[in-house]
Amino acid sequence: MRSGFSSEAQMIREIQRITGHAKDRRLVLPIGDDAAAFRTQPGRLILVSTDALVEGIHFDLTYCSPEDVGWKALAVNLSDIAAMGGTPLYATTSIALTRKTSADFVGRLYRGLASIARQHAVTVIGGDTCRSPQGIFLDVTIIGEVEPTHMLTRHRARPGDMLYVTGELGGSSVGLELLSRSSRKIPRSATIRRHLRPQPRCVAGRFLAERKLASAMIDLSDGLSTDLARLCEQSGVGALVEASQLPLAKIPGRQRQLLPNPLLHYALHGGEDYELLFAVPPRFSQRVPGQIDGLRVHRIGCLTRATGIWLLDGQEKHRLNPGGFDHFA
Amino acid sequence: MRSGFSSEAQMIREIQRITGHAKDRRLVLPIGDDAAAFRTQPGRLILVSTDALVEGIHFDLTYCSPEDVGWKALAVNLSDIAAMGGTPLYATTSIALTRKTSADFVGRLYRGLASIARQHAVTVIGGDTCRSPQGIFLDVTIIGEVEPTHMLTRHRARPGDMLYVTGELGGSSVGLELLSRSSRKIPRSATIRRHLRPQPRCVAGRFLAERKLASAMIDLSDGLSTDLARLCEQSGVGALVEASQLPLAKIPGRQRQLLPNPLLHYALHGGEDYELLFAVPPRFSQRVPGQIDGLRVHRIGCLTRATGIWLLDGQEKHRLNPGGFDHFA
Repeated sequence: MRSGFSSEAQMIREIQRITGHAKDRRLVLPIGDDAAAFRTQPGRLILVSTDALVEGIHFDLTYCSPEDVGWKALAVNLSDIAAMGGTPLYATTSIALTRKTSADFVGRLYRGLASIARQHAVTVIGGDTCRSPQGIFLDVTIIGEVEPTHMLTRHRARPGDMLYVTGELGGSSVGLELLSRSSRKIPRSATIRRHLRPQPRCVAGRFLAERKLASAMIDLSDGLSTDLARLCEQSGVGALVEASQLPLAKIPGRQRQLLPNPLLHYALHGGEDYELLFAVPPRFSQRVPGQIDGLRVHRIGCLTRATGIWLLDGQEKHRLNPGGFDHFA
Repeated sequence: MRSGFSSEAQMIREIQRITGHAKDRRLVLPIGDDAAAFRTQPGRLILVSTDALVEGIHFDLTYCSPEDVGWKALAVNLSDIAAMGGTPLYATTSIALTRKTSADFVGRLYRGLASIARQHAVTVIGGDTCRSPQGIFLDVTIIGEVEPTHMLTRHRARPGDMLYVTGELGGSSVGLELLSRSSRKIPRSATIRRHLRPQPRCVAGRFLAERKLASAMIDLSDGLSTDLARLCEQSGVGALVEASQLPLAKIPGRQRQLLPNPLLHYALHGGEDYELLFAVPPRFSQRVPGQIDGLRVHRIGCLTRATGIWLLDGQEKHRLNPGGFDHFA
C-alpha cells in the first residue's frame, strides 16, 4: 500500500477522473470495461502508433516533473499521427510503477498527460496499471484517423522533391545537454521547455495533408540525420541538405557557451525536436507557405536520384551519416 | 551492442520478419511508418485494450520460456476482445529490453507471440523497442471490432440472470503455485501449460455475442471473486455462487498433494484462467449449450437484486470477498 492507493480500482478511478473529458458522441464505451469501443467515420482510415517512455532511459526525474513525463508520453505519440497528416482521437496508457511511486506522483503525471490531451481533443480510453521492479514505464498507444487520399507516408518521395522542415532544429537536444550538465535545478528557459514539453505539429501535418502538398512526411524524433535517412531509404532516394538553410534553434549566448558542440551538430543529430520533415514536388513548392498557423516552415534541401545523403556546408560537401539516437547501436 | 542487434532498425526488421503474415486487404500501411493504417468495416465498432507483462511481476524467466512470454502477452489481450464478443484484428507491441537481453531471446519471444497471432488471424502492425534499466517490459495493445448490437459489456446484467463460466477454474494459479514451489525445471504438464500458455476464448465470446444470449460478460484475469465483483458492481447487482457447481480444474493427485490450499480456493481466487464469465437472462438459459466448439460451459449461480456476493457451500452461505490479484493492495 506504499503507493498511496488502497487498490488498483482506486487508482484507475483517479486516472479516469483526471483524464475525464467532455462528451464524445463516437465513444460508445469509455475506460472501465474489458475494452473501449468507438464508432468509425465511413471511409476514413484508422491510424495506430505506440511509443514508450522509460525512466532512466528517456527521462530522469532529477530534472523532469511528473507532469513533464505525462505530457511528453502523449506528445511523442501525437507527433506520429501529425506525421501521417491525421487527426488523433484516442489514447491508451500502460503504466508500471515502483513501490516508491506515490499517489501524488501518479496524479501529477496524468494531469500533465490530460493537459495536452485536452489541447488536441484526445480522450484516454483505456490502459493498464501494474508494478515495476525498478523504474517507471509509461507506454502510450495513440489512435487517429485520416482520409485515405490525405495520408502521408515515408515512401512516396521522389527525386527532385524539395525538402522542408517545420519550426527550429536542435532545441530539444540542447535543452537536454543543459539539463544533464547541470548538477542542480535550472530555470525553465524556452530551450529547456523544448526538451521537456515538445509540441506535436498536428495542425501543420493536417494542413499539408489536406492540401496534398507533400509527397512524404516523417516526424523528427531521433534527429534529422537519422529520420531523413529513414525517409530516403523508404522512398529509394538520396538527399542534399544545405547547412546554411537549416533553422537552428535560437539559444541565448550564455547557454551556448556551455555546449560542447556547435549548434549545427544539434540541428543535424539531436533528437526529440518533434518537428515535421517533408518532401514537396517542385510544382507545388510555390504553394508551401512560409508559416502554418504561426509555425515557420523552411526549405532545407532536395531529394536526389543517387542514394546517399550529403550536407552542403559552405564550399564543402560531406556525407551526412545517421548520428541520431539508436537504443541498440 | 550487447543485445546482439547492430541497430534498432535491424531489430525492427527481425520482428517484422517473424510476425510477418499473409496479405491483409484492410491493412493499408503495415509496421514501418510513423503509424500503421487500416480500413474499417462500415457500422462496426472498433475495440481497444492494453495489457502489459513485466518481468519479476507477471513472469519469471526461471520457469517461463521467451516463447511463453510472447504468447501470454498477446493471449491476455485477445481475452479482452473475447470478453466483448469481438473479433481481434491488429496488435502493437512495445518492448523494453535490458542490456543483457540477447537477439535470440527477442526472436524467441516474438515467435511465441506470432504463433498465437496466427491462430487468431491477428497482425502485428506496430510498436516500440527501447532499453530497460532492469527487467523486461512488454506492453501489447489489441484492436478488434464488433457489431454494435453484439457487443457485450459488464454493465447490463440484471437480477435473476443466470451466471455461467467457460472451461475450468483454478488451473492457471495451481500451475503457478507448482512452478513457484519447485526449485528446478518441472515438466510441462497440462496444469503448467494452463498458466504459461492461456487460451483466450474468442470463439465462445463471439458465439454468445452473435446469438445475443448473454446480458454481460467479463474475462477471468484476476480471479472469479474479483472479476465477478467487477461485473456485479458495474451492473448494480449481487450474486450467489454455488461451490458445488464450480468446474474445478482437474489436477493429478500427486500435484494436488503439493498445494497448500484446497482446489476451491484456486477456483475462486486464482487469477489468469482467462475463461469467460457471463450472465444470461432466464428466458435464454435453455439455449446456452453445454459446450461451445468443444469448450464446456457451466452454470455456477445467479445474480441477485441485493448487492453483495455470496458463496453457497453445502449448507453454509459465506460472503465471497474479492480475493484475487491486486497490484496495489
